[in-house]
Order: sequence, then C-alpha cells, then structure tokens
Amino acid sequence: MRALRFDGQLRFVTDAPRPRREGESLVRVLLAGICRTDIEITRGYAGFRGILGHEFVGVVEASLNPQLIGRRVVGEINVGCGHCAWCRRSDPRHCPSRTTLGIRGRDGAFAEFLSLPAENLFPIPETLADEVAVFTEPLAAAAEILEQITIEPEDQVVILGDGKLGLLIAQVVRLTGCQPTLIGKHEHKLAIARRRGLHTLSLDEASRLPPQHTDCVIEATGSPTGLELALRLVRPRGRIVLKSTHHGQQMLDLTPLVVGEITMLGSRCGRFPRALELLTTGQVEVVDLVSDIWPLEAGVQAFSEAQRPGALKVLLRP
Amino acid sequence: MRALRFDGQLRFVTDAPRPRREGESLVRVLLAGICRTDIEITRGYAGFRGILGHEFVGVVEASLNPQLIGRRVVGEINVGCGHCAWCRRSDPRHCPSRTTLGIRGRDGAFAEFLSLPAENLFPIPETLADEVAVFTEPLAAAAEILEQITIEPEDQVVILGDGKLGLLIAQVVRLTGCQPTLIGKHEHKLAIARRRGLHTLSLDEASRLPPQHTDCVIEATGSPTGLELALRLVRPRGRIVLKSTHHGQQMLDLTPLVVGEITMLGSRCGRFPRALELLTTGQVEVVDLVSDIWPLEAGVQAFSEAQRPGALKVLLRP
Repeated sequence: MRALRFDGQLRFVTDAPRPRREGESLVRVLLAGICRTDIEITRGYAGFRGILGHEFVGVVEASLNPQLIGRRVVGEINVGCGHCAWCRRSDPRHCPSRTTLGIRGRDGAFAEFLSLPAENLFPIPETLADEVAVFTEPLAAAAEILEQITIEPEDQVVILGDGKLGLLIAQVVRLTGCQPTLIGKHEHKLAIARRRGLHTLSLDEASRLPPQHTDCVIEATGSPTGLELALRLVRPRGRIVLKSTHHGQQMLDLTPLVVGEITMLGSRCGRFPRALELLTTGQVEVVDLVSDIWPLEAGVQAFSEAQRPGALKVLLRP
Repeated sequence: MRALRFDGQLRFVTDAPRPRREGESLVRVLLAGICRTDIEITRGYAGFRGILGHEFVGVVEASLNPQLIGRRVVGEINVGCGHCAWCRRSDPRHCPSRTTLGIRGRDGAFAEFLSLPAENLFPIPETLADEVAVFTEPLAAAAEILEQITIEPEDQVVILGDGKLGLLIAQVVRLTGCQPTLIGKHEHKLAIARRRGLHTLSLDEASRLPPQHTDCVIEATGSPTGLELALRLVRPRGRIVLKSTHHGQQMLDLTPLVVGEITMLGSRCGRFPRALELLTTGQVEVVDLVSDIWPLEAGVQAFSEAQRPGALKVLLRP
C-alpha cells in the first residue's frame, strides 16, 4: 500500500505491506493530520522508524467486532499490554510495554490502512465532517489538562503558543469559566483566537506583562524558550503545564521553580469521548485551523509546508 | 562587629556596623550553620552581597516586645512588605518585596548580631541545645514538603542526596508512615540514616533500581545530575520534589516529564513551629549531623571545610 515512512529520512513509498495484527481491526484511512510530534520524530525524537501519523479518521474494513465494520471512526493511539496495573485500570497511556500509533513500535496513519484494537476505535456521528473529526486526538490531548488540574473561573491562565494545540487548549480552558490569554507570534493565528472571543497578546505585548502574576501557564510553543517565559510569568506557588515535547536537551535554570515553589507538570494524551463531545456540540471549533489538505503522495512536501512558520494543521488524504 | 561578609569574595571583617533596623529586634548570635545555599551564593547564586548566614540560634538583646528580651530564639528568615496578598496571609515567604536573612537584601547570621522583626523570632525551650536548635531552619525547609504534597504510608519514596538536608528530609518523610529510601554516595552519611532505621542505597545500587517505579522522588543532592536520576526513577504520573538550588543553568531533557505526565514541584522555606516540635520531641535527630564547630574568625576556612566531600553541618560560633 501507499504510505509515508520515516527510516532516518521521510519517504513516500508504494510497497508498504498492509498492516496485519492478530485480533485487531483494519481501518482504511480517510484523512490524517500532521502533528508537531511527527515533525519532531523526523528530527530524531522518540527514535521511531516506520509509518508516521497518529491523528486520523477512517472507516473500519475488518474487525472482530461486527458492529464496527463499515463505521467511520477515530482511534486512541496507545495500545497497552493488557496485564499491567495501568492496563487493568483501562488506561494503557502509561503502560510500560505500550505501543503508540506512529510514535512507538507501531506503524501509523499516513498510509492507506492502519491497524488498531477494536477497543481503541470510536465510531463518530455522520454529522461530524472528516476535517473536524481528525482533530479528536489533539483535542483530547488539550482536554487532558483539565483531567490533571482544576482551573477556577477567577484564575489567571496564560497559554503560550498560538499553534493548533495552543488554539485548542485556549478553547478548552475557557470552558472552565476563566478568561485565558493566548500569547503567540503569528497575528493571523491570534486573530483566529480573537474570533472566538479569546484574549490574545503578541510576544512583544507579553514581554511587558508583570512577572510572577499568572496562576497557571500552559506551555504549548514546542520551543525551548517557552519554558523560560513560563517561569517568568508564573506566580509563586503557581502551576506550569508542559504540553509540548521537542527533541534534545535544553539549557535551563530551575532556580525560579524552587524559589517560587512552582508546580510543573507534564501532560500528554487524553481520552477520546470528551473530545468527541466537544467537537460534536461545537463547544470547540476547529474548521479554520486547517492550512491545507494534501494527497499522501505529496506527503514529504506537506511536511515542509507544516513546518513553515505560520502554518496551521496540514492534513493528508491517502 | 565581627562578621563573615561576601562581596564577590568571602572575608572575615571586624568593622561591620551593628545592624539597626527600625522597629526590629536585635539578636546576639550564639551559633550559626553553613548551608549549601551559602556556598552557592559564594559561587554567584542569588547575586547577594553582604553578611551571609540564615541558620542561627541567638539571644534577643533588644526588642519592642519585652517578653522576647533575654530569650534564646531561632528566627524565620523571610521578612515581607506587610501589605501584599502573601503578607496579609501571614506568609511573607513569597512576598515579592521580601528580604531574606543573608540571602536577599538583608545581612545575615554569620556575625555577632543580626536584626529581625519580633514576629520572626521563636523562643526555644531551655532543654533544646544550641547545636540542635540551629537545625530549625533547615528542618522547617525539609518539613515544608509535607505541607505541599500528601505522602501515603504505602507510597514508594526515594530521597536523592545524603547531605544534611537529605538526612533531615528522610526522617521527616518517614513520619508519614512510609518507608523512604535514601540514596547517596557517602557511606558514613548513609550509615547515619541506617542508625535511624532508614533504608539506604549507594549510587551504584541505585543504578540497578527498576526505572519508572517510584511514586515520589525528592531531589536534595544540590547537583544537576540529581534531576536526571529523579526523572529516571519516577513512575508515570509520579512526583518529583526539587529541594536544592544551584547557581547557573543545566542541560536538561524534559521529554520524560511530558511523556510520563510527571509533576515536579519546587520546595523552599518552611514554618518554624512544626520544626521546633520535631526537634523538641526528638522525632527528628540532628546531633550526629554536625561535622565541626569553628570560631567565626575562621569562617573562610570553615567554608572550605563545609565544601569538602563528605562534610556534614559546619557550625560557626561568633
């Protein structure tokens, strides 16, 4: 089948074997999204080799669960061992032996077909367009923050980074009743946030914010400099949520964290049902977050486009 | 008066003016402890210039509170503005305009006299020896951890660093009912912990621990490598407490924090009443944590001694 594979270099191939995993379901991919993590993998992050991609919507072609066959689905990307303490709590996201679609030990969604266990697949309503449903995975990751911390309506919350993830997080955070501020460097992305009634600041305006006044800073820039700004903005005993991973080490002075008794927590994958609810009800809007849709054949070029400063979500259609 | 001053270089001086601050109490210092923070200041940390020292026991010579005069006291080291939100909650530890004894905008305890507001001073019982009472400040810092997080008896807790702070933290953490493990590289310090019934591991033994199995790792090594080990040991969704500050930046890969959804929190100064209670009741023992007592005149040499690998608490007697 056709696929976009990373083997130290990103290549479009036509001879990838169709995935076949015992007991799992086969999904024909309709649409898939390029995520910053995919780009980081091509820079060496996670050491992954194989077919990239973990944001998708597709149609189930084969499954041991007959009710799934023919259904349009999205899919949770972590597959656990089924036996460990995490898996016994039906949460394979931290199973030490997990595979992760297109990230860890399992070929991904930039292909004609992918394989996932039936329990990872979530049928979606007919009313939900492919271009919307494909945001379920990143939106679940954004919503994960609210599973980890409580945000009060009166909290001052700042989101750093006006990329896709930052724009999703800002919308999710506002559902708590607080008035978050999105800080970014792309005027047309900040304008998207403002169209949703969100408060925004340019990096220049943010540099004039009083230091140590923000209750909670959510770092979603994907850049090592984001954490420095977060440490400058957060108040004593405040919180920093780290959402973005990037390949490699960075220079960091953690003294402000100790002196300010800051809590910093990492945040990764979220659960799908809540994200689907937010998309279906329109509480989170994603339709203007798509930069472009490319055919899978042009995947290498689409990756370049996705890395262009100012790009939003780039989608691939197999 | 005689004092140990840092002005880019550490010097013993005899001509320091006696401290005089409007409305505050004057304390004659009986005994003071050299802390790792003092050593870090001589390396550039916090940019402090002045008389060092923030761990002390002394006698009140003058005060607007007549009940304090002549009393032996220890003292909380942060002095707030009195007006901000933190100060109004009687917690000047994070007041943005605070001064901190021997660390920030206020001369410290390595001198014949120091000045602090009466409300910072805590009279101590006669039964408490100077050599024990002088540990109130670092013990309060150790106990602060339990004000920030809850540790359950069944939690696996690891303390990294067998210095004074690590030995205090291990004793405090054990009061929760859990069985913490102290990891360090000095056999004679680990032996002190074992004499208190604590479980210990050498660094070599620790390198064979299974990764990602510890519920809570408390970093008190004072070394940048401590955090790397902490990130290796902590389980997904576990906690890392950062207790030690060091001057300058370090190279760090925070990916494990994001992927594992780890919570990392900084921890600094604690409250004195609880620490005094722990010392008075003997729940925490400190007497064998003293390496040596030096006269203030030999303060520069005492600082060298305090930096010798394997040294424990070095005290200064003015």
